[in-house]
Order: sequence, then structure tokens, then C-alpha cells
Amino acid sequence: MMSRVRVGAFSISVDGFGAGPDQSLENPLGLRGKELHEWAFATTTFRTMFGQQGGSTGVDEAHAARSMEGMGAWIMGRNMFAHSRGDWSDDGWKGWWGDTPPYHCPVFVLTHYARAPVEMNGGTVFHFVTEGAEEALRLAREAAGDRDIRVGGGAATIREYLTMGAIDEVHLAISPVVLGGGEALFAGLDLPALGYAVSQQALGENATHIILTKQ
Amino acid sequence: MMSRVRVGAFSISVDGFGAGPDQSLENPLGLRGKELHEWAFATTTFRTMFGQQGGSTGVDEAHAARSMEGMGAWIMGRNMFAHSRGDWSDDGWKGWWGDTPPYHCPVFVLTHYARAPVEMNGGTVFHFVTEGAEEALRLAREAAGDRDIRVGGGAATIREYLTMGAIDEVHLAISPVVLGGGEALFAGLDLPALGYAVSQQALGENATHIILTKQ
Repeated sequence: MMSRVRVGAFSISVDGFGAGPDQSLENPLGLRGKELHEWAFATTTFRTMFGQQGGSTGVDEAHAARSMEGMGAWIMGRNMFAHSRGDWSDDGWKGWWGDTPPYHCPVFVLTHYARAPVEMNGGTVFHFVTEGAEEALRLAREAAGDRDIRVGGGAATIREYLTMGAIDEVHLAISPVVLGGGEALFAGLDLPALGYAVSQQALGENATHIILTKQ
Repeated sequence: MMSRVRVGAFSISVDGFGAGPDQSLENPLGLRGKELHEWAFATTTFRTMFGQQGGSTGVDEAHAARSMEGMGAWIMGRNMFAHSRGDWSDDGWKGWWGDTPPYHCPVFVLTHYARAPVEMNGGTVFHFVTEGAEEALRLAREAAGDRDIRVGGGAATIREYLTMGAIDEVHLAISPVVLGGGEALFAGLDLPALGYAVSQQALGENATHIILTKQ
């Protein structure tokens, strides 16, 4: 098994936004951004991840489960980790996910501001990388070994790795919502020119799943 | 029954293009634009429309049939009618659809260049409107009476009528393809601010159908 770099369960609106406008502590996904993720919140995988019972078991669930499988490292943009900007303050922020984040492996956070690693329960360690996307990928490859690397988000981070041609597979979930503004995933991105094509389409209960692979 | 202004069976790529780049006589839908319409070409409605046997009878077909029902007038941009630009030459061009176009009602073509109406077999009459989108809509309303008005396309024409808030319902078909360039349907269009929201999602055999309605 070769390690692959994957985007998984990345939700977008029909009009192509990966988050709503005006991200804040109250609205980490931007205004109405939560509506993008309703399909995921309904699945057994995501409910279990956040300590809830039950959940769906169909096509959406299969894609949610697949998105979490086999990960040896994650990469994410700072805005996915924190609402704060600029220098890290002493506010004790350790991500949106409580004491036991759902990653269970090293997570490399892209930032312009240095910070010591933060070790969480359950195997998640947040590392803060100030040397850019290439270096974060190198560190993630080293940490992941044969396992996969997940580029979590947000849209800007995914766009950066797509433009580098570094991503082997992208799983998008198109939710039945229009946002009109926010983080545009596709703006200026010529996916066919970068070598990407749709390899699978699966029609879920609450979203349409599209798999893009690099040729 | 009130007459409604509708966009129907308008196909877009996952990355939001309603046609490929470089439209021409050889590629009226732009490069790779045909891939947007594979779902439609497979349906009984579209096959019958173009004199072919057979075709699918599922969700895609239901949406194709619905898109053609109850139309009393069509509006389209010039580029949907012809590959030529500028003054109308004497080349005898009467649209892409042969002697019996699939409209069977008046069709108002937006253009900056005057031209006499062209009457086709089967009830289609092409009228060339030089006074702009509002006037074309007025003429279409007059012609359609209680029946619906279809804004056919292309993307620029649909964007213009959406921005005017003139469209009651939009049916988009998202095809499992990325184009990377072409006619971007959503660029700069804030659909929620214009009053549009997703009212239905239907997962077809070869496309995802999204219905937007004006609130």
C-alpha cells in the first residue's frame, strides 16, 4: 500500500463554497456554513466521532467512513484549527474538538506564527508549521509512513495543495444549498489542466459525492 | 395557473461551468461542453426530441420531461442560437436544431443586431430582440399567456435574468465532470441575496438535480 494524499468529505455548496462568509468564534464555518455539513452530521461515523448514538448507514455513511480510514497524518490551515489570527496568545486554545480530537495522529497546522506542539488525548498531536505547504507535506509524509495523509481544509489550503499537484484524490460532497458567498473552492482553479478528473459519482441520501483523482 | 419564468435542465459541471471554453461551430457547447449533457442525451424526452428511439425512464427522464412541459415561450441568448457574432449575414442560419426545432412556440433571441423573424416547422418562430432582456421578457409574457416562459441559456443570459430577480424556478443538473474553464454560472452571483434557495434535490442516474425557487 502506497501512502496517498487525500481530501475527504469536503463539503461544498451548489455554488461552490466550502465555508460561508464571516467566519468567527460563533460561526467557525462562516454564516450558514453548518448547512454544508448536515449530510455528515447524520452519519454514524460523525455521530460516533462526537460521542453521539445512532446515525445513518447508507451511501453518505459509507463516504464518511471512507474519509476517515487509514489516515497517518493530517494537514490543515490555521483557520480550520482556530478562530484567532496573528500571534498565538496564551488563551489555551487547542482546536474546536475538545480534549480528544477525532484525528488520533499527528496534525500539521499551517501558520505564520511559531508555537510549541500540543499533545491531546487519543494520539492527536498538533504541530505548527511555519515553513509553508511543501514542508508541512514533507513532515506529514514522514509521520504517516505507509498510511494516507488527509488535507483537511479549509478551501484555501486545499486549493494550494491542488495547485501544487500534490493531492491524489479529492472527495467532495455537494450539499443541496446555495450560499452566495464565502470560501470559493474552484475560483481560478483549472482542475483538468492540473490533471484531475471525476472518477466516481455516488448519490447519497443528503449529498452528492464526487471523487476526483489525479491522472 | 400562473405563468412562471423557469430555467430548466440547465447542466453545469461540478466546478460550476454551464459550457466549456472556446465555443465554435464545431463545439457549440465549448470544449468538452457535451459532457455536461450526457445525462440528458440518455433520456427518452431528449431522444424523442431528436428523432431517436428508446431512452431512460428514471429520475433523469422525469426531470427532462418536466423541463419541457407547459412552455409558451422561450428566451435565449444569441450564442445559444448561433455560432456567428456581429451583424447577421445572409448565410441562412436558422439555429442548431434543423427544420423542426424542439420549441414549438415563439422563441425570443437576445441580440444587438436586428433581423426579421424566422418561422420554422412545428410552431417555432424565432424573434430577434434588440431592446434588451426586460423587453424580451415582456414579449415572452405576452406570447406565453398562462403558459410558462423558459429562459434557455446560456449562462450569461440566465445570470442576467437571475440578477433582475425575474426567474421563479431554476432547475440545475450537476454532471459528474470538471471543466476548469468556460461559462461560469455562479461567478459574482449571490443567489440567497437575490431570494433564491434550494427547494428540492433529486439524485438521478447520471446527474444531480437541484431546484432553486424564489422565496
